[in-house]
Amino acid sequence: MTARAAVAAMTAYALELREAEVKLNQNESPFDFPLKAEALARVAERAWNLYPDFESLTLRNALAKAYGFDADEILVGNGSNELLAAAVGAFVGPGTPVVFARPTFALYEKLVTIAGGLPVPLDLDPATGLLPLDAMVDTLTNLRGAVVIVCSPNNPTGGVLPEHGLEQLLATGATVLFDRAYGDFALDTLPPLHDRLVTFSTFSKAWGLAALRVGWLASTAATCREIRKVKLPYSLNIVSETTAALALEHRNLRDVNVARIIAERERVLAAMRVLRIEVFPTRANFIAFRSPITFEDFLARGVLVRKYAGFLRVSVGTREENDRFLECLT
Amino acid sequence: MTARAAVAAMTAYALELREAEVKLNQNESPFDFPLKAEALARVAERAWNLYPDFESLTLRNALAKAYGFDADEILVGNGSNELLAAAVGAFVGPGTPVVFARPTFALYEKLVTIAGGLPVPLDLDPATGLLPLDAMVDTLTNLRGAVVIVCSPNNPTGGVLPEHGLEQLLATGATVLFDRAYGDFALDTLPPLHDRLVTFSTFSKAWGLAALRVGWLASTAATCREIRKVKLPYSLNIVSETTAALALEHRNLRDVNVARIIAERERVLAAMRVLRIEVFPTRANFIAFRSPITFEDFLARGVLVRKYAGFLRVSVGTREENDRFLECLT
Repeated sequence: MTARAAVAAMTAYALELREAEVKLNQNESPFDFPLKAEALARVAERAWNLYPDFESLTLRNALAKAYGFDADEILVGNGSNELLAAAVGAFVGPGTPVVFARPTFALYEKLVTIAGGLPVPLDLDPATGLLPLDAMVDTLTNLRGAVVIVCSPNNPTGGVLPEHGLEQLLATGATVLFDRAYGDFALDTLPPLHDRLVTFSTFSKAWGLAALRVGWLASTAATCREIRKVKLPYSLNIVSETTAALALEHRNLRDVNVARIIAERERVLAAMRVLRIEVFPTRANFIAFRSPITFEDFLARGVLVRKYAGFLRVSVGTREENDRFLECLT
Repeated sequence: MTARAAVAAMTAYALELREAEVKLNQNESPFDFPLKAEALARVAERAWNLYPDFESLTLRNALAKAYGFDADEILVGNGSNELLAAAVGAFVGPGTPVVFARPTFALYEKLVTIAGGLPVPLDLDPATGLLPLDAMVDTLTNLRGAVVIVCSPNNPTGGVLPEHGLEQLLATGATVLFDRAYGDFALDTLPPLHDRLVTFSTFSKAWGLAALRVGWLASTAATCREIRKVKLPYSLNIVSETTAALALEHRNLRDVNVARIIAERERVLAAMRVLRIEVFPTRANFIAFRSPITFEDFLARGVLVRKYAGFLRVSVGTREENDRFLECLT
């Protein structure tokens, strides 16, 4: 093997690849995008032999208009994963301490390890489900030049950062990477811009466009310029860019998805509590829980969930899918 | 600014964003993809709310079949840029020396800098246009654990690696990243697999699918496993994957594009030589040249070319586009 030591020591990001009738393992929206025909008609008009716009201006302008930013305060990419990687590349070098909750989205630690940074995981309290804000602030106060990655609502547990959490984290002097992939399900609002705050959003969840891989970030123009140096050029293909811009013309689609998913989440949570299943408080489109029913038990009954150390996670699906899940528990 | 020093010191990858009637600045195919309707029909059938296949097996299987590999000897990504970045992440750590030609594709040095590696550029000889193989071999022989990045035909000059060049580079013990983005225009063949050789290919040039951003790499299964640890998951959206797999069912499309572009390249080269324009020998779909006509002169006459230090580069376009370019020279 010729890979460098830090990479050779890593394990690959893996997913239980299983077929199941009811797929509730990836926090996807259960509702397909209703404007495919219009999106495809727009794309058919374009030249496929030419590179996408170098600056992705169509989508950046649409996002700027929708969220009240300037286009130079926005970057778009091939899923928010790509932008998280670019931001870690911009802010994390050899030895940079990077604080994040445990458990959280596994990609963060992987990106930090590749960059040569020092992962500093802090356990969250499953009882409250909240992210460990006090421990994060204490730890960051004692670290120089640190970075903190916050996923709120947190994947895979569903809890959020306590109120005014971002302000407290910024007050430590740390750079804050704020992943709000599931923020729409918590009815959040985007925080004000700050040179040391980068907010990551995605079209994969509430918009129901996971198949197209579109993410975006917001920060000050100065910070966007630095991250853009690390980001690959042309990373968003024309189909994904066109479709995301079209989606933004119909924001009610997202709002309807979110309302339906929140209503189902609350229905499923109530049913699980009646069954005395131990659930983690959640404001996302998924529920982490502990139960005597195992991953394999669910799978044997046609329901694919996600397995973590000590708990399972189920995405909120359609009413019928959720009923199939609840039947396994009874 | 909070970006780390190595990033703060970088300049952003930039492109002269100019509108022109005749666009010959990005080495694109002048021929649009003729099977858009079929590709879009396939995509319309898919669920856009669900993530792409975690393993991109459809396209990896299609490539394996087309090129005589196993699927686990192939990775696909969001343009070959993404795969180059992943390979640099896997092989280049702080201080790793990385040899490449000067000039070459600017992304290589950027990726090496982000990874903390040590760029070792070696000048190529514009008279022969060949990559500086002897200097590379000499330099690599004196370096431990080095990596060499070879673009052949080389962007932006068009020359190739001398015959048996890859074998000589591998014999030094170096890891060889071989970018054959323009290889189809040199009628190359894919080299045999080797643990220390990674070959990068793209659908952006000869296939005319730059707008969709699809690249792939081939190496041994063991080396693919290491690079896959660094690569982002789900990096290829379903539209790009579906279209690339469809393209592979019609390989004559690529062969026809290549034949037409090579014929035009030779016609344009001959005309330039008659005009006593100093051209770099090229086997790619572009021509680097020196002339008293400046970038701005071309632009004023409606032709967008690419400007480099000391020379210009023009993509081979349609017959009509090439005639417009040649008119500027006369």
